[in-house]
Formats: sequence, C-alpha cells, structure tokens
Amino acid sequence: GKLWMLQTRTGKRNGIAAVTMAVEMVQEGMISREEALLRVSPDQLDEWLHPRLDVHHERQATILAKGLPAGPGGGTGQIVLSADKAEAWAAEGKTCVLVREETSPEDVHGMHAATAILTARGGMTSHAALVARGWGKCCVVGCQDLEFDEENLSVKIGSDIFQEGDWISLNGSKGTVYAGHMKLEEANPASNPAYATLMEWADEFRRLDVLTNADSPEDAARARNFGAQGIGLCRTEHMFFEPERILAVRRMILSDSEVERRAALDELLPFQQQDFEALLETMEGQSVTIRLLDPPFHEFMTLNAEQMAELSVASGHSVEFIEHRIEQLHETNPMLGQRGCRLGVAYPEIVEMQARAIFEATSNLVARGVDVHTEVMIPLVSDVNEFGNQEAVVRRVAQEIQQRTGQKFSYHVGTMLELPRACLTADRIANKAEFFSFGTNDLTQTTFGFSRDDVGGFLPYYLSGNILPADPFQKLDVEGVGQLIQMATEKGRAVRPEIRIGICGEHGGEPSSIDFCHRTGLDYVSCSPFRVPVARLAAAHAAIRHKG
Amino acid sequence: GKLWMLQTRTGKRNGIAAVTMAVEMVQEGMISREEALLRVSPDQLDEWLHPRLDVHHERQATILAKGLPAGPGGGTGQIVLSADKAEAWAAEGKTCVLVREETSPEDVHGMHAATAILTARGGMTSHAALVARGWGKCCVVGCQDLEFDEENLSVKIGSDIFQEGDWISLNGSKGTVYAGHMKLEEANPASNPAYATLMEWADEFRRLDVLTNADSPEDAARARNFGAQGIGLCRTEHMFFEPERILAVRRMILSDSEVERRAALDELLPFQQQDFEALLETMEGQSVTIRLLDPPFHEFMTLNAEQMAELSVASGHSVEFIEHRIEQLHETNPMLGQRGCRLGVAYPEIVEMQARAIFEATSNLVARGVDVHTEVMIPLVSDVNEFGNQEAVVRRVAQEIQQRTGQKFSYHVGTMLELPRACLTADRIANKAEFFSFGTNDLTQTTFGFSRDDVGGFLPYYLSGNILPADPFQKLDVEGVGQLIQMATEKGRAVRPEIRIGICGEHGGEPSSIDFCHRTGLDYVSCSPFRVPVARLAAAHAAIRHKG
Repeated sequence: GKLWMLQTRTGKRNGIAAVTMAVEMVQEGMISREEALLRVSPDQLDEWLHPRLDVHHERQATILAKGLPAGPGGGTGQIVLSADKAEAWAAEGKTCVLVREETSPEDVHGMHAATAILTARGGMTSHAALVARGWGKCCVVGCQDLEFDEENLSVKIGSDIFQEGDWISLNGSKGTVYAGHMKLEEANPASNPAYATLMEWADEFRRLDVLTNADSPEDAARARNFGAQGIGLCRTEHMFFEPERILAVRRMILSDSEVERRAALDELLPFQQQDFEALLETMEGQSVTIRLLDPPFHEFMTLNAEQMAELSVASGHSVEFIEHRIEQLHETNPMLGQRGCRLGVAYPEIVEMQARAIFEATSNLVARGVDVHTEVMIPLVSDVNEFGNQEAVVRRVAQEIQQRTGQKFSYHVGTMLELPRACLTADRIANKAEFFSFGTNDLTQTTFGFSRDDVGGFLPYYLSGNILPADPFQKLDVEGVGQLIQMATEKGRAVRPEIRIGICGEHGGEPSSIDFCHRTGLDYVSCSPFRVPVARLAAAHAAIRHKG
Repeated sequence: GKLWMLQTRTGKRNGIAAVTMAVEMVQEGMISREEALLRVSPDQLDEWLHPRLDVHHERQATILAKGLPAGPGGGTGQIVLSADKAEAWAAEGKTCVLVREETSPEDVHGMHAATAILTARGGMTSHAALVARGWGKCCVVGCQDLEFDEENLSVKIGSDIFQEGDWISLNGSKGTVYAGHMKLEEANPASNPAYATLMEWADEFRRLDVLTNADSPEDAARARNFGAQGIGLCRTEHMFFEPERILAVRRMILSDSEVERRAALDELLPFQQQDFEALLETMEGQSVTIRLLDPPFHEFMTLNAEQMAELSVASGHSVEFIEHRIEQLHETNPMLGQRGCRLGVAYPEIVEMQARAIFEATSNLVARGVDVHTEVMIPLVSDVNEFGNQEAVVRRVAQEIQQRTGQKFSYHVGTMLELPRACLTADRIANKAEFFSFGTNDLTQTTFGFSRDDVGGFLPYYLSGNILPADPFQKLDVEGVGQLIQMATEKGRAVRPEIRIGICGEHGGEPSSIDFCHRTGLDYVSCSPFRVPVARLAAAHAAIRHKG
C-alpha cells in the first residue's frame, strides 16, 4: 500500500518554462528568490530576447530545407558565401546570412558580421553552433540539402538555386529555411510578467552594473529596453562607413597635408555631431562612453574599381597615387600596427574633430536641458604619456566650446586597457584617466600572442589536446588575462580610489567571465544589446554565489 | 710667477686610446680597477671588435665616394636597394650591402640582414647611424655622391654605375666607399695586452654570465674567442635555408599526411644532426641552448618561378596546388600566428626529428668523450600545458636513443619566455621547465602591442613627442617589459630556486638593458658574437655601480 519513488529526474524545460516555473515556485513559497534565480541559466534567457520571424508570414511560407536549430530566433538577409565578403557587406550596411559548408575559427569575423548563419554540416556542438549560441545569433546547422557551386557563387537550397545577394530567412529555433525576405518581430520579453519579475529580482541581487556596446540610437534603445544602464562602448568608426561619409574618410586618409586632412574632416564633423547628439539623447540620464577612432586606415580603403574611380574624381588624385597610398598603408601585423591612439598621436586633427563633434552635441543637449553623461575613451593606450597627449587635445576642445558657447557641461576622459603594458602601468595611467574599460578581445590577443584571425590553424589542437580548457576569446582566461585585469584594478584603485572600472570586450556578456568580473570587484560589464538580460542574470548569480 | 689652470676638459679619446689609458693609469697606481672599467664605455669596445678591410688592399684601391663614418669596421657585399630584398638575399646566404637614400624603422629587418649599410642622406645621429652603431654594424651615411635609378635597379656611386648584385666595400670607420669585393681582416682584440687586461678585470667584477646567439660553428668559435661562455640561443631554422635542405623543408610543408611529412623530415635529419654535432663540439665544456623550430611555415615558401617549378617536380604537386597551399598559409598577423610551439603541437613529428638530431649528436659526442651540455628550448610558450606537450616528445626521443645506443647523457629542457602570459604564469611553467630565457624582442612586441615591422608609422612621433624615452626594441623598457621579467623571475625562483634564467633578445647586448638584468638577478645575457665583449664590460659596470 506504499508508493515508492524509485528514481526521479529533473524535468527538462526550455527557457520560457524555466523562468515561469522558477517564478511560480517562489510565489507559491516553495523556493527562495535566490534559488529561483540560480535555477535559470543565463543562456536560457536567449529564447526571450531575439527577434522572431513574423508568425503569420512564416505560417504561409514553404519550407525550403530543414537543419538543426543551433542559434535562437529568426534571421533574414542576403546570401553571402564567404566570411570576408560577409564582413565587407556588413561594413557597407548590408544585412547578410553567411551560408557555408561548415565554419572554422577562420570564419569568425564573417560570422560576427552576418545576421544569421546556415551550414550544411555539423551538429549542435559544431563550431558554427557553439559560436552562434555564444553570441545569441540565429543559426541553422547540418542542413544537408545545401549544394555549393563556388564557381558561379551560387548555392542550391532544397530544389532552388540562389545567387549570392539573394535573400533568405531562417528560423533558428526550429531549424527551418525559407526563400526571400521575411519580416521580423522584435523581442519584447518585458511584456511577460514572469520574465519581468525574475529580472527585477536579478537586479536586486546583482552588484555589477550592466552596460551595452552600441553605436546607433536603435541599438541603444533596444539595449535600454533590455535593461542596459548606459553605453560602455560606442565605436565611432562604424559611423564612418555610411556611403555619404566614407568618401570624406577616404579623402582624409589620402591627404598629403594637415590642411587637406582638416578639410576632409570638416565634412565629417556635422555627421558625427548628429550621430552623437542622437545617441546621447537616447541614453538620457545614463552614461555614454564614446571611443575615439580605433581601426587602422587600411580598413577604410578596400575599394572596388567603381569606388576607386569615384575616389579619384572626388580627391583629385590619380588611381596610381591611390593604389600607391593603399600599398603604403599595408602592414605586416595590422593588429599591432598604427591604430587606436597611435593614429591620434600622429594626426591630432582627427581627435580634434571627434572631440568637437562629441562636445558640440553635449553642449547642445545640455542647453536644451537634457541630462547627458559624456565619457570620452582613448583606445589602445600602452603608456600614460600617450593618454596625456590625447587627453590634452580632448580637454582643449571641450574648453574652447564651453568658452565659445558659454554653456558649461561636465564629462570624463578615460581609457581602454587592452594591452599588457597598460595593465602593468595602470597606476601611472590612473593618475590621469578617470575610468578604465578593459578591452578583453585585444588583451587576450596580446597576452597570449594569439591573432584572433589566425587561431584557426592551431586552436583546434589546443582544445582537443586539453592544452587550453576553452577558447580564450569566448571565455575569459582567468589565469593570464584575468591576472592582468586584477593587477590593473588594484593599481588603478590605489591611485584613484573612485575610478570606475569595467569591461567592454565580448566577454562582458559571457557568464563565467561575468563571475570573474564580480569577484574582481569591477563596477560594470558592457555587452551587446541582446546579451544585456543574460549579463543581468549572470551578475545576480555571481553575487548570490559569492555572498558573504 | 704662478701657473693658473683656468679651464680643463676631459681629453677626447677613441676606443683604443680609452682602453689603453685606463689600463695604464691603473698600472701607474693612479686609479683603481673599478675606476678604469667605468672610464671605458661599453660601446667604445666596438672599434676593437669588427672586421676591417684588408689594409694593403684598401691602400691600393680608389675611393669612389665619401660619407660619414657612422658604424665601425669594414664591410663588403652585393648591392641591394630594398630592405625586403636584403632580407631575402641574406636568407639565401648572400652577403649584401643595403644602399638607400635614407633608412626608416620600416627598413630595420633589411638593415639587420645586410652586412653593411650605405645611405645618401642623414648625419651621425640619423636613423641608419643610430641603428648600425647599436648593432656594431659597418655603416656609411650622408654619402651625397649617390644617385638612384629605381627603374633599372641601379645606383650611381661617384661616377660609376652599379647594378643590384654588384659588389662594393665600405670602411665604416673612415666613411669611404670602394668598388668590388675586398678582403676583410678578422678582429683579434685579445692580441692587444691592454684590451686583454681590461677584459680580465671586467670578468672579475661581473656577476652575469655572457653567452652568445650563434647558429654556426664559425659564429660560435668567434664568440668563444670574444669570451662567450656558451650559446644562449641557436636558431635551428637558419639551418633550413641552405639550398640542399630547403627543398626537403618545402616538401615537408606541402605534405598532406603525417607519412609524407615524416619522409621529408627523414631527409632533413642527417643535416640537422651534423649541424648540432659540429656546434656542440665547438662549444665543448659549455652549454648550447638549441631552440626548436620557430618561424611560421610561410617564411620558407617565398618562391620565384624557377624554385616553384623545381618544387613542383620534387614534390609531385602541381604549381596550382602549391600556390593554393601558400595562400592557405597566409596569416593576417603572422607575428601572432602559427609559429613556435604552435607548430610543434600541431606537427609533433617536426619536434621529434629535431630532438632526434640533437640527441644523436649528443650521444655520439659523449661516446667520444666530448664534454657537451645540451639544452633544448621550447619557443613561444603561453601555458605550462604547451610546454608539457612538447617536453614529453623531447624526453621520449632522448630516452629512446639512450636505450638504443646504451649511451647515457644528460640534458635540460627549458623555454623561451616571450609572451606576457608566459611571464604571468611562470610559476606554473617552472614546475616543468628547467631554464627560462626571455625573448625580449617578441615580449616587447606583445607587451606594447607594437609590431616591430610596422612601428615606422608611429614610433617617430612617439620619440619626437617624448611619449617614449627610447625605442623599446633598442633599449629594454624597464617599466613594462621589465616588470614582466621581474615578475616571472620571482615566480620561477619561488617554485624552482635553482632555475637558470637569462635573456636572449637583442637587448642582451645593450648596456642599459644589461644593467637591468643585473639588478633583476638574472644569471646570464646572451647576445650576438660581436656584442660579447660589450656585454662583458657592461655587466662589470652594472656590478660595480650596484655594489653593496
């Protein structure tokens, strides 16, 4: 007459169910809030956070092919067959879906640039699947009905042939592929009460602030909606790629003299100012950290024949001259070349233009009564003197604008710590810098001496041979890179106890890395908009786990 | 009736006079030995140490042109007009003189590869002059009688026209230029009693050992003659470039399978074994540190049409196949790519072949009663597991050879510390590694995030703007790179107190860097053969300066 429970197992549940169950169990008094938070893994929030294909549209469409649902949400874009092209197209503002036999670490830049990823081979733990889920990117893998025709730059999906540039749509939660452009529904998780409740609890427990990496008012607004508390990284160069601006950028790069360079920069100034004004206004009441120009000049100089001809006319330079200049810009190791503040030291007029755009935007908004918090960030500093050199230009421009307009405003000047030497000399840098933001992508590259673009040749051997426990570009390497972060944090605080310190590399949205940031006493993490709720929950987990 | 001395000045003296005066003043009881040593600056030894143009030959020759005597000694070689070509020709075993309008940091690799340097512009503190003197390299600058014809790859010197590949000779101590190949007289400073005495005193006072970087028995013998106490760095890849070997190296690189790769490696084995046997025998009684293969594969794959055809026949692969493979080997940032132990982890059969060559050479010599001290060095380690992976292969091969031959021998396995992460985790690495050798060139590149090949674009701004006090590739950056060295030394010694620690980057021959090595408690510095006496004196200066 007795009921014996011989075995029990935890019921498997998807993300939405996990959140709902956890919240209901608290409401029924069965578990504590802490327990509820710990029962939802940060990555389970992914399902809530991604745009989905429009339900009606999808219901009417014919499935072209099926694969494995490797990355959440929906995606639509133009087919592109190589990682390099994905990156180039994305830089031109196109939305693309990277379609490949399979992916390798060499494709990561293109996977990042693409809106969604479709592969013919691989399972739920294939390279494409792992990377896509890490980023919360729509992805379908193992779609066997793909046939590539590389010569004709086309791919057969099911029974239809598509050219590069044709549109397709993916449902990464189901693994389905559709022809053509499909409307996307924005995610709106906050409208679900269980989700909203759980995130409220997470915010109560966490100590870390969660900021976002965003360059446009749209991304900024989305991140705010997801609970971001400010912008930790605005990459100003993304604003340079728009068609009406890139020509001025290229003319600036071709300039022979400061006068010529200033003329081209003058054309960019109003665009940058509008960009910053819109961004700062979107983030009213919150901080916006604007990084000065970072990439090397050659990244702006990938030209096809048509662009070359256009630039030749616009600049008055011959095609030969332009080709020669491009050749001069070539670097053996661009990752370690003339970029970041090394550009600003050589061409202070660029810093001046960017500072002018930032502070005129700030001044205008303050005059209109908008509550803005402008933070200017100097990239790729290795020595306090570089910082001092760039800071002087920034502060001089700020002062000029305040004098001219009579409008007072406040701002901070800080720096990225993304080179070992910056971390090693963080005490000296903190004498001048008002905040630190660890750029963990570059810091990982230089600490290990691994080029992120070239790890494909050896990292697989390192992972399969257990030489490294994980890809250090995905999970922060606590032992090496983390040691530098900890050292720099201690050195910085010893000199300037109130200094604000965070991280803005991609690790800022990865749970184990966020746990490290909590333990190390950082003030904030900054991550891509879709990772913001993940980071909020991960930060709460860290606080609960390491309590007391 | 009184003699008033109104003003006195220190008599200017060249290096030979400085040494002679200092030694004689000690012998006359006027100054102490310490004082005498401090009165000779290490760089003044340069004049003693360099080959000179044969006096009789030079006396009979006609001077083509005159410039400034910017780098000591004599030099003779084939004219080469670009830095890249100088490097390529040197790799092929040619002796060349780099002839340029002027030089910039972008030319440094070619300046290093050339035997001597001749420039049309610049004074005694021009880039070419500073760099050449730093290396003790023959150099004439500001030779206004040069006219370049870049299209025809020719240069007019005085009234004669020379093609690239024609021979010229320079006297860098006088600033004279001659046509044709001229015999050189080897330097033999030890035959001068004053010099010999001063160096004896230096050896009494210094605490640091001075080793040399040498890859050939000739270099090794020269360095020994200059007082080197062993080889701190033998770069094994230099042995790969000789014509009869490079074909096997290239076939190895093209291999599709381990079997094919092993077949090509088997052909290299006897060459490497002979190389190591000769080197170890030359250094009898002293340690020889052999670094395993370091450069990326693509450095071996620069092929002209003829070489391509030859390789195609030898390998049985089509030209298209070879071209495709070369394209695959291309890396975005080769400095941070697949090189060093990353090659060895992916292709352990290469490590196996090198270990076999090293230990068969060692075994043969020990059997003949030669006193050899073999040290195997794993390059570019960032984690103890990489070291463990490579060490296991090396020790397995050593054991196999000892079992097969019945000949016992001892050896050490250690590592280069040339990445920040290796320094940060030196305690863990010291659990396995028996010695550390700081590779300060690469460590400077990664700590600053400066590509040595690309600093030309920004370093001049850093030096002229006093952002950095000196080129960190010339003088060791004590604050940043030095901090890592100190940290790694402390961590290493905490785990393995007897661990032998030195430096083998080019800083090993630079006085201010040697002073740092002394202060930090390193065991040795290793430098190029011609810098050995300079390093001995600089080490003595450091010991005297920091006594007590």
